[in-house]
Amino acid sequence: MASVQDQFAPDLLVWIDRDAPEPLRAQLEQALRDAIREGRLHAGTKLPSTRALAGELRLSRGVVVEAYAQLVAEGYLVARQGAPTRVAAVTAAGAADVAPPTRLGATDPDAAAAVAHARRSWIGSATPTYDLRPWAPDLGAFPRTAWASSVRTVLREAPDATLGNHVEPRGAVELRAVLAAYAGRSRGVATDADRMVITGGITGAVSAIGGALRSRGVRRIAIEDPGFTVHRLLLARAGLEVLSMPVDEDGIDVDALAVSDAQAVLVAPAHQYPLGAVLAPERRTALLAWARERDALVIEDDYDGEYRYDREPIGALQGLDPERVVYLGSVSKTLAPALRMGWAALPADLVLDVGLRVTAAGGTPMLDQLTLADFVDRGELDRHLRRMRPVYRGRREALLAAIAEELPDARVVGIAAGLSFTLLVDGLDEAAACVEAGRRGIAVWGLGSFRGEPAEDNPTGLIVGYGALPEAAARRAIAELAAAMSDV
Amino acid sequence: MASVQDQFAPDLLVWIDRDAPEPLRAQLEQALRDAIREGRLHAGTKLPSTRALAGELRLSRGVVVEAYAQLVAEGYLVARQGAPTRVAAVTAAGAADVAPPTRLGATDPDAAAAVAHARRSWIGSATPTYDLRPWAPDLGAFPRTAWASSVRTVLREAPDATLGNHVEPRGAVELRAVLAAYAGRSRGVATDADRMVITGGITGAVSAIGGALRSRGVRRIAIEDPGFTVHRLLLARAGLEVLSMPVDEDGIDVDALAVSDAQAVLVAPAHQYPLGAVLAPERRTALLAWARERDALVIEDDYDGEYRYDREPIGALQGLDPERVVYLGSVSKTLAPALRMGWAALPADLVLDVGLRVTAAGGTPMLDQLTLADFVDRGELDRHLRRMRPVYRGRREALLAAIAEELPDARVVGIAAGLSFTLLVDGLDEAAACVEAGRRGIAVWGLGSFRGEPAEDNPTGLIVGYGALPEAAARRAIAELAAAMSDV
Repeated sequence: MASVQDQFAPDLLVWIDRDAPEPLRAQLEQALRDAIREGRLHAGTKLPSTRALAGELRLSRGVVVEAYAQLVAEGYLVARQGAPTRVAAVTAAGAADVAPPTRLGATDPDAAAAVAHARRSWIGSATPTYDLRPWAPDLGAFPRTAWASSVRTVLREAPDATLGNHVEPRGAVELRAVLAAYAGRSRGVATDADRMVITGGITGAVSAIGGALRSRGVRRIAIEDPGFTVHRLLLARAGLEVLSMPVDEDGIDVDALAVSDAQAVLVAPAHQYPLGAVLAPERRTALLAWARERDALVIEDDYDGEYRYDREPIGALQGLDPERVVYLGSVSKTLAPALRMGWAALPADLVLDVGLRVTAAGGTPMLDQLTLADFVDRGELDRHLRRMRPVYRGRREALLAAIAEELPDARVVGIAAGLSFTLLVDGLDEAAACVEAGRRGIAVWGLGSFRGEPAEDNPTGLIVGYGALPEAAARRAIAELAAAMSDV
Repeated sequence: MASVQDQFAPDLLVWIDRDAPEPLRAQLEQALRDAIREGRLHAGTKLPSTRALAGELRLSRGVVVEAYAQLVAEGYLVARQGAPTRVAAVTAAGAADVAPPTRLGATDPDAAAAVAHARRSWIGSATPTYDLRPWAPDLGAFPRTAWASSVRTVLREAPDATLGNHVEPRGAVELRAVLAAYAGRSRGVATDADRMVITGGITGAVSAIGGALRSRGVRRIAIEDPGFTVHRLLLARAGLEVLSMPVDEDGIDVDALAVSDAQAVLVAPAHQYPLGAVLAPERRTALLAWARERDALVIEDDYDGEYRYDREPIGALQGLDPERVVYLGSVSKTLAPALRMGWAALPADLVLDVGLRVTAAGGTPMLDQLTLADFVDRGELDRHLRRMRPVYRGRREALLAAIAEELPDARVVGIAAGLSFTLLVDGLDEAAACVEAGRRGIAVWGLGSFRGEPAEDNPTGLIVGYGALPEAAARRAIAELAAAMSDV
């Protein structure tokens, strides 16, 4: 479709003044020199072909050829036989070299190395040998082929208007309908497409709901402590006072909540993060009674409710009182956090406000929404979960077996569900243990990193996530961890 | 990969109590009836195969077969030979029918009609015959094949860690580097990857920057009036007082700005929205002098700076003073608004705060970011622009020729750039004209819909966008518009 010629005609903004006394060639040279010196033309940028630039600026081609040659001679540009002229990397000393392009999958080994380096810099430090951080599912198992197939379907079949501006603040109705049905059948959520808002993961939902609550006069919200500290920050940013509620092996302490003056609460009843507690049946009842009595809102963070092992399934709290409980789900623990897709099933009077806040923040890309709708509708999400549950169960069992042997004094809690559990170790110096573990190639976090408010008599321990740890590595990882803990 | 069996094993949350006196079959029936009645199982939802559900619940298959049969008899479920059992659409009268699935590209004509209906409901009302609204580029020209190729490349080559959690609040370094180079060469923006933040379109950037300014004590921000009213709302939501500045054919009135007590200003210097003015050279200078004198920030909305026709290119204001001007770009006018991708080139001291706000709102999906990086890096964005510029130029010329003939008294302004211009008509009843135009199948907006504050002596007129209007339709569209205007 594109000719070879137009491959070398990238946009380039250069000013030529035909009324100025300077010759056109000198003007062009100076304009390019200035653009390179002032950082507008970056090292490695391809210049247009001499023919294309001459056409663009209405100059004779010879003028452009000479200007390029002069700048090559000066070290500003680099020309290679059969390749586009590029901007050189001009160092302080004036020496020049071509910067590698950032193209994904570039075949030039230098470029590939630069891309790999850049990737490392934003993905974080070097990959640990054993990654026990509880922050992602098995990314190597992401169903790339099935996802690509849904992307292809959407790009082939979505009408042109799909690509336009969308005034619907809740997101694509296709996705809302599919997710309402999915959340209903798999998690017992009682909602429909009208009361769903598509969000930028659970993060985007918490920010938007925090803002909506603040705007209707809510001042104080309770959260679990230990809990997901990012949520504490998001709610504080939304202008709310955040109250820490204690958590034990039955989940959030509802008695403590009842004597607080919280007007809303954010909880993870299916698998408290990070301790792993399942909210006990009597506390579920008490929590909903509290909400009714205080006219308060419960925000249910169902971040990994799809994973359950030993116990009977427990449905979402939301199903018991849909006008008092907001349900939050996402694909971060089932597919991949980087998809940035979540959903909120809301009481009717919060839908529009939350949707508008999500839209004001930029909204979720429509093609991604339709891709997920197709993916779930074709049963691919169920299929993926069905494939992964036994994998995670196996990892969990291998870890528990290794812990029983290597760390007989540790107490394990929160194993019934999710992708992580907690290892309680009395009197553990968590920071020292994590540093020592890091030295041995184990990435692991202490319970303390999930605390909002320090307390004297808190239990100490480590969180063990198995989203990223292959079953075969469980024994060695725990042996190293045990060695690290005995060294501190 | 998936067996036929597992195709019919979607997740389904059902509670069975082995200690209860009720028979298991009756419990299962009641659980399904309750889930359907309470809206947790939606009409059209596929149930698991009897074999899969029996395995899941540790029941004999016969129990599940009988329960399904009973519920089919009661009208709760619908069974069809060779197809999965589905939840029926139970009406108030108890009659039942299968709700169509929402699957994209479903071959069932009923389902396709339902999807088409749903799409219309969120895309807006019926498509007008002639769409002159200035809100999108030609969506039919979106380079689907080239975009799909970039998606494929990313899904094939991105390392697994790409799919994980990203702690970098600015977005993917690959995309920031590619866009910094692109904005530098094509728009004269002086920045680098470190000072770029990827945002949810310009919308997401304005919200985040508004919040960041408010948090550092800025109280009042000026905007153009008429202008993009959404930005007024976003800035007000961020807690800022929004001051209206008049606009004429040379752009924003910098003298008015100078006598106001604004501490920041949001402007569109390349093509004021909606009037289309290009900020005059002496006003560019005066605006930057104002910013330096007041220690104020200029936010440059370069929403369609890539399109220019008659005039010499004018670079971004940001290139003249990168520490006082924030540059905002996006793909909404070059590719498609639904991609929700934009970028902000920021002064160093704003980068982290804006990035964190974007992240707190949910962030931009990583695969989309890498897709755009690949797309721009392969030269596809330049190629697309090079293809589209003559198309839009042709549409604009056809419209101007038709206007000269059909509306000789109207004055046309703002034609030098962008994808829209303004038709000034003295004493026009804009609302009546737009309604009458709508009756004739023309979607068009009056100048008044872009005003923040009503004023007596404001000029009246209509905005004519040509992103969506084929050249061949220009004459008929303008003839109908002229007829509508003469009728009011």
